[in-house]
Amino acid sequence: MKSADIPAQDAREREVLDRIDRARRARARVREERVTLAHGSGGKATHTLIEAIFLEAFRNPLLEELDDAAQLRLGDAGVALTTDSFVVSPLFFPGGNIGDLAVNGTVNDLAVSGAVPRYLSAGFILEEGFPIADLNRIVASMAAAAREAGVEIVTGDTKVVQRGKADGCYINTAGVGVPRRPPGALSLASARAGDAVLVSGPIGEHGITIMLARGGLDLEADLVSDTASVAGLVAGLLEAVPGVRAMRDATRGGVATVLNELAMAAEVSVVLDEGAVPVRPEVRGACELLGIDPLYVACEGRIVVVVDGDQAQDALAALRAHPLGEQAAVIGRVAADPPGLVLLSTAFGGTRIVDMLVGDPLPRIC
Amino acid sequence: MKSADIPAQDAREREVLDRIDRARRARARVREERVTLAHGSGGKATHTLIEAIFLEAFRNPLLEELDDAAQLRLGDAGVALTTDSFVVSPLFFPGGNIGDLAVNGTVNDLAVSGAVPRYLSAGFILEEGFPIADLNRIVASMAAAAREAGVEIVTGDTKVVQRGKADGCYINTAGVGVPRRPPGALSLASARAGDAVLVSGPIGEHGITIMLARGGLDLEADLVSDTASVAGLVAGLLEAVPGVRAMRDATRGGVATVLNELAMAAEVSVVLDEGAVPVRPEVRGACELLGIDPLYVACEGRIVVVVDGDQAQDALAALRAHPLGEQAAVIGRVAADPPGLVLLSTAFGGTRIVDMLVGDPLPRIC
Repeated sequence: MKSADIPAQDAREREVLDRIDRARRARARVREERVTLAHGSGGKATHTLIEAIFLEAFRNPLLEELDDAAQLRLGDAGVALTTDSFVVSPLFFPGGNIGDLAVNGTVNDLAVSGAVPRYLSAGFILEEGFPIADLNRIVASMAAAAREAGVEIVTGDTKVVQRGKADGCYINTAGVGVPRRPPGALSLASARAGDAVLVSGPIGEHGITIMLARGGLDLEADLVSDTASVAGLVAGLLEAVPGVRAMRDATRGGVATVLNELAMAAEVSVVLDEGAVPVRPEVRGACELLGIDPLYVACEGRIVVVVDGDQAQDALAALRAHPLGEQAAVIGRVAADPPGLVLLSTAFGGTRIVDMLVGDPLPRIC
Repeated sequence: MKSADIPAQDAREREVLDRIDRARRARARVREERVTLAHGSGGKATHTLIEAIFLEAFRNPLLEELDDAAQLRLGDAGVALTTDSFVVSPLFFPGGNIGDLAVNGTVNDLAVSGAVPRYLSAGFILEEGFPIADLNRIVASMAAAAREAGVEIVTGDTKVVQRGKADGCYINTAGVGVPRRPPGALSLASARAGDAVLVSGPIGEHGITIMLARGGLDLEADLVSDTASVAGLVAGLLEAVPGVRAMRDATRGGVATVLNELAMAAEVSVVLDEGAVPVRPEVRGACELLGIDPLYVACEGRIVVVVDGDQAQDALAALRAHPLGEQAAVIGRVAADPPGLVLLSTAFGGTRIVDMLVGDPLPRIC
């Protein structure tokens, strides 16, 4: 990877960058008349929906942070609050099921926001006819995942809808935690040129596992979902490395989407080294067959870390000290120009723009 | 209403009471192999599901309280946490839609737990093809309801499922608030003989409005849902009346289910005066045609209050001082015997047992 920033190289390229920039700065507007699967992808369409509809209606400074967890004051205390609904299909897959996914997903949103995850709520929407035995398995997995992550499920709700009005079982979890750092101390917007970008392990295993579990693909691979609580991994990192700027779990939209959010929030560029991104051969092979880029494939137990460049090796060591981070890697760096873009230095010495996820190649992966 | 307790009057009656008591004390077990609509009714089947599956797996003291909101300690602060998913059908109905319902429902769970509602999360599950215009209307109603209740929606999530895998739009809200009283100070279990039972207004309007909005009934009535935030109503009551023992919003399962929960939690009986329960003529008429008892029909802006009998009139005055409580009424009293049962003194001078809701005459009312 070159150490200098990568400038736009000619007028045509500059024009393209300007066009991208103008499009991004335009007021978000949902052009579709109806909701599409892409609106749930976590990528570009989801961002437009959030900005044009939810932010517009609910406008308040806490929501506008668009962080994985909102940083609240309640009485004298700081509290982090987050929520996620889970609609993964199939409900059971190698390495987990919707239950542990729902616990880990919310635990991880709290953890990467810098909070110690403490308590979860659980809301179930069940389809009439759903097997009680399956519900028992799901709930047992939730209990095990909660124990593993050190959280308690303290309140809940159950709704049942008629046959054909859901797909077995949907779960919402919300979670609260105690912030380790003051509000704003960890934020994608605080990234600056010279920072290093790390990932805590091989990417895309969850998304590809789900894809394969759906069948219909003439493809077998020895893969399991990476679903896991990253609470312990994050705790170790934050204790060891004062210069952590921000963390995100790379779920829907994958690492590429997290880095685009980073580039836009901090008005910097991110330069990725393609060869440094850890991807298991099975994931790479499946991605090639499916024609998708592993950078867009969801993980459910991997985090992206932005850290002061001088502390990159400390961060790497801290991540690798945890079982979940043994294959952590420095995958890129933050540069000043061109602001708002993620660039990939390919193995062939070229550079290409890695945009946000468009469309949704893998709906309902979480 | 007679002032003495109502004892079992003969051996046969005692035998029936004993049988009910044994059945209730038996370890909860879900006998069905598959989820039924009754499991989402809020009544008996829901309780069995919660006790046999969720409590069994997640067992912890906070969850076992089974209150509308869990009372947590986070660092030095007390925090109330609650959640509800909303699957009401139709999504739009006279007096509201799923959006304000989802905000008010969670605000009310916090309020009746004795907390000041502060922040909400919102998780959307949208069906592919759902009109963006409808989503905008729903979100605008959520924003208006949040303003009215004095809360902010600070974090959220959106998932999209394929056509036929949902019914337009499901919403989960979770909420946090600041407790006004120490944990346990307000609890159904603290009710004792001599306490008064009040309701804040006419019952069953929400449930019957939804039923009529579904069409298919050759019945029209000038009814709107009672969906509203009770946060202000509750604040006034708690300020004026130190002897409030417990409050509940009478949603799924209606007033009858709340009172059964009370009777079981406090091991007391509740004696209701049928003539004192406020029910609008339109609701009474519809209930008669449908063959259902208004005591089981959901409200979304009415609360049941248990208060020291000496302060019943103060509580009544405090409720009536608020626009939502103008038709509040004392509807019954708590007695020592027979423990665990709700009895109704009918207009004809008889007494009958009001059990928990069995089955689900009105699925998906919230």
